Amino acid sequence: MADLEFDPTSHPHRRYNPLTGEHVLVSPHRMKRPWQGQTEPPQPTALPRYDPKCYLCPGNTRAGGEQNAAYTQTFVFQNDYAAVLPPPGPAAPPPAHPLLTTQPVEGSCDVICFHPRHDLTLAQLEVKDIEVVISEWAGIYERRGTQEGIEYVQIFENKGAMMGCSNPHPHGQTWSLSQIPTLPAKELANMKQYAASNESTSDAPKGPSGRPCLLCEYAHYEVSLAQEEGRVVYKNEHWVGLVPWWAVWPFEILMLPYKRHIPSIQELTAEEKTAWADCLSHITKRYDNLFQCSFAYSMGIHQRPVPLRAGQSADEENVAHLHLHFAPPLLRSASIRKFLVGFELMAEPQRDLTAEQAAKRLRDLSDVHYLAAGTQA
Amino acid sequence: MADLEFDPTSHPHRRYNPLTGEHVLVSPHRMKRPWQGQTEPPQPTALPRYDPKCYLCPGNTRAGGEQNAAYTQTFVFQNDYAAVLPPPGPAAPPPAHPLLTTQPVEGSCDVICFHPRHDLTLAQLEVKDIEVVISEWAGIYERRGTQEGIEYVQIFENKGAMMGCSNPHPHGQTWSLSQIPTLPAKELANMKQYAASNESTSDAPKGPSGRPCLLCEYAHYEVSLAQEEGRVVYKNEHWVGLVPWWAVWPFEILMLPYKRHIPSIQELTAEEKTAWADCLSHITKRYDNLFQCSFAYSMGIHQRPVPLRAGQSADEENVAHLHLHFAPPLLRSASIRKFLVGFELMAEPQRDLTAEQAAKRLRDLSDVHYLAAGTQA
Ligand SMILES: [Zn+2]
Ligand SMILES: [Zn+2]
Repeated sequence: MADLEFDPTSHPHRRYNPLTGEHVLVSPHRMKRPWQGQTEPPQPTALPRYDPKCYLCPGNTRAGGEQNAAYTQTFVFQNDYAAVLPPPGPAAPPPAHPLLTTQPVEGSCDVICFHPRHDLTLAQLEVKDIEVVISEWAGIYERRGTQEGIEYVQIFENKGAMMGCSNPHPHGQTWSLSQIPTLPAKELANMKQYAASNESTSDAPKGPSGRPCLLCEYAHYEVSLAQEEGRVVYKNEHWVGLVPWWAVWPFEILMLPYKRHIPSIQELTAEEKTAWADCLSHITKRYDNLFQCSFAYSMGIHQRPVPLRAGQSADEENVAHLHLHFAPPLLRSASIRKFLVGFELMAEPQRDLTAEQAAKRLRDLSDVHYLAAGTQA
Repeated sequence: MADLEFDPTSHPHRRYNPLTGEHVLVSPHRMKRPWQGQTEPPQPTALPRYDPKCYLCPGNTRAGGEQNAAYTQTFVFQNDYAAVLPPPGPAAPPPAHPLLTTQPVEGSCDVICFHPRHDLTLAQLEVKDIEVVISEWAGIYERRGTQEGIEYVQIFENKGAMMGCSNPHPHGQTWSLSQIPTLPAKELANMKQYAASNESTSDAPKGPSGRPCLLCEYAHYEVSLAQEEGRVVYKNEHWVGLVPWWAVWPFEILMLPYKRHIPSIQELTAEEKTAWADCLSHITKRYDNLFQCSFAYSMGIHQRPVPLRAGQSADEENVAHLHLHFAPPLLRSASIRKFLVGFELMAEPQRDLTAEQAAKRLRDLSDVHYLAAGTQA
């Protein structure tokens, strides 16, 4: 076999993720056979527009006793069972052993209802409604991120019973913390390292001080490829959604602005926000259309840890480049999921379907949500 | 709150994992209430001792057409749908872009049946039967790990439908690869770093060249604590099973020999192998007893990547210290699991139950398997 030419669609290989410094093992030879997944869509469960027992619906009372506002767009409240408590907290004790260190964490956990309707998701919202969600995210990032003692704001959405999220009401969360968590800290360190030790020969946008930005370079390369060669699922004037080269989840998506270097949500123009809402709408619709179900995923926004403080001058955290990760577990149908277990948990993530194959499947889907298509027919 | 004394059983904090260099967020204030989990055990499904449709039972024919031996102890065969192909493979092409690198991977995937009985698991096997499994692991490590082109042997077990493992027949796998995967590479790098940059003031065993070993130091500290203060679940003369300080999974276990520095399974004495089998038996029994079910988990063995080659002298990979990780998803009952999603997937793992609380719950359980206790009653 040593004389054969390497073929990424048939030879097992590893791909490197420069954001995390980790690898994924790809076994495309197991995908050579024609598509064999189950494709029967399950009957969609009809949800009510308003559920009197939902703790997120407008006007309802939550378990803690508080009443939700009769909101008509988005609605934000502090999580009644927050994973962290507001600062200031007690200082760390000296460790009992150098290998057993403790770092106190303070902060706040917020819940964001995306829309008053119980039965809709981002995939079914109008672009203008998604723009309202983006404005709410921007507001929380600025409000929480400028509070004393807060060093990081993580905006995320966890969607679907398969992800342990039992309430279908469209909502996300924000955890604002006194420390930068493991994964964004790792990404930020790798972005800094990239900016410091690489020279760009492309005409991609540049990061702070004219240094190359890992994500500007990567997105620029992806959008420059002929569509059928690449991993782009959808792009508009400012934003692109693609299956990254190093994707771990079968239909993982990386979504980011590619026309200029944008460290955080705070720096988006109105036009860039609308383009983001459009990109979110297109990607989430294709997700739902893939297996004709409300597609489960975890989504997270990575950006500058917190906004630049008043009186601060631009610092090195501007190497951050605003982006979203979508990690969906579904593999072959509305009920067949990928498990990250065994070798993957103990050694290295692994996939059969290549990123290119996944991108093509998502790209080839309709832009019209399958439930809307049903009612139009 | 700044004047309060820090209390690890009530104040949110982060713990550092020196093996991976990552953190876990602990929210013990959410556990203050008395134990509220569901505790009704499900009816155990009675499995047959032999299942004519099981592709792992003795004498049965597998999907690929091959017939299993009529084995009476353990049985090993090459996985019919291996994630990698045997060496040599083609060389890597130059990357299309520096951010999109490809590394070919070669190797073999083996399946190990632990026992001919379809209805037993490690928790129900006799210690002498587990010793046979350990010998089989040692044999595969030596056989695969000395093959040309193999640089790493990962032994693991993935158990339970909840982990995507549909066949209850007791079995594990071994993937032997041309590269060291992400997680063991990271652990090995941190072990080397620890040996190089620390001085030991304890009387823990020492690693190569008399340098301190991260895991010798850690295990030595844990076994020296008074039982009620610590995280030890079970220990015998040579091995200990404990919930590590930095555990991510609710009932995660780290199992390792603590009396001397042991880089790999190859270097265990007969007595140490028996002690390991005893420790495996005790821990897996307690797992099953916790929620009175066949406890699902992924287990992985980390050690020297491959045996020392003939003619090689001891090299720096002897800083590795043989250990096992158990990652079980169950949280509060036989059906309530932890999901690693949302913030945990996008930022940092999080847990409510502390490692100390988990260790105490496991420690307080009976040593007699609940199914055997039932038949004895
Ligand atoms: Zn950039
Ligand atoms: Zn050691």
